[in-house]
Amino acid sequence: MHFTSEQRLDDGVLEREFSLGDVPGILWTPASAPGPAPLILLGHPGGLRAMYPRLAGRARHAAANGFAAATIESPGSGDRPRSADAEQARAELRRAVTAGEPVEGEIVDRLVLPLVEKAVPEWQTTLDALLALPELGGPVGYSGGVIAVGVRLALVEPRIVAAGLFAGSYVPRAMFDEARQVTIPLHVLLQWDDEGNDRQLALDLFDAFGSREKTLQANMGGHTGVPQFAGEDAARFFARHLA
Amino acid sequence: MHFTSEQRLDDGVLEREFSLGDVPGILWTPASAPGPAPLILLGHPGGLRAMYPRLAGRARHAAANGFAAATIESPGSGDRPRSADAEQARAELRRAVTAGEPVEGEIVDRLVLPLVEKAVPEWQTTLDALLALPELGGPVGYSGGVIAVGVRLALVEPRIVAAGLFAGSYVPRAMFDEARQVTIPLHVLLQWDDEGNDRQLALDLFDAFGSREKTLQANMGGHTGVPQFAGEDAARFFARHLA
Repeated sequence: MHFTSEQRLDDGVLEREFSLGDVPGILWTPASAPGPAPLILLGHPGGLRAMYPRLAGRARHAAANGFAAATIESPGSGDRPRSADAEQARAELRRAVTAGEPVEGEIVDRLVLPLVEKAVPEWQTTLDALLALPELGGPVGYSGGVIAVGVRLALVEPRIVAAGLFAGSYVPRAMFDEARQVTIPLHVLLQWDDEGNDRQLALDLFDAFGSREKTLQANMGGHTGVPQFAGEDAARFFARHLA
Repeated sequence: MHFTSEQRLDDGVLEREFSLGDVPGILWTPASAPGPAPLILLGHPGGLRAMYPRLAGRARHAAANGFAAATIESPGSGDRPRSADAEQARAELRRAVTAGEPVEGEIVDRLVLPLVEKAVPEWQTTLDALLALPELGGPVGYSGGVIAVGVRLALVEPRIVAAGLFAGSYVPRAMFDEARQVTIPLHVLLQWDDEGNDRQLALDLFDAFGSREKTLQANMGGHTGVPQFAGEDAARFFARHLA
């Protein structure tokens, strides 16, 4: 892991860009901490540059609670090499959604399963590198989409003790068996009228999770309209489980 | 309205029992307030004496945020005269739920519609009397079950500006048209595996509400297992809309 830039934000949060192999990422740490900080991994749909304002906002919110936050670029997004198969599947999914047609499970599988296979080991390698830093400790939470990536991480990565999942993208039906085996506390955010997602699929996924503590919070406002209080409720979820 | 008893609780909250005609009730007001306090009406399934510990807990929570709280006995519950028809319908509903049979809409209609017809005007009369007290102002919120009573009140009572509804009891399908006309902000609490309720009915009702701001929060734990953090989230909903 190599840090490539460093800046102190106006609220004192230290923001450092890094690269790990060919994967770029960003680490935010609180202005001051009494000891190694708990860490929240910030999932997102890909495209670090475009997502930066929202990611930095979430990271500052985490830092205000004493948590560090980190994210990495998604496979096939930003400056990373594209996958022709994924681009093709993404275009087909967009076409179906725009036309108001049902989204075939086969398209979801072709888009999401390879992404999960590639992204999850990258998150785990990132976690190895981050937790080797003296300023970071545990426990670790995962926050956000891509929800299928969050489901796999919640299942296979024992260092992640709680996940705040954004049900704003399709999950392959093949992954429901994995969801049933997830046992960590979950806070699932759903935009009720998300124009690019399937509400029933999200409700079925929430039902499938094996966790004894799981909360679904659904709000109005479309895919990007998550209300501010929902972000605050999610922050309190992490405060309960990481502090 | 006649106050029949008065006591100061250990946290300074003033608890006064009252009767309004033949309807008994309880009013809680904060230890101190800078002016007339906003008011939260506490709905419940009936039986003030048995419900007292939970109602008083909710009222103290409200008082800590500067809100007064009040409740009245439900028609046909506690010391109030029973309705033979309602008792019969309640027994049939319990039998169906216990046997794992589907609950017929006709049973729900016979149990809930007369209750709504009787309870809502009583809440409104109570509101008239309470808001005449100098220590109470507005705005007013409704909190809890019986959710069908909350739906009707949210629609017909303009002094109620926000409702935190507990989706823990059946709502007649005939009332879905009323739900579509509700426009005030709503915070709907659902116990995902509520052993005495129909999850799909609750989800359909949430979908039907006409409110632009509506939040569904679903948790695990059965009908009486609402987690503490869910109560705190609901309290923050009222703080946003009544403060």
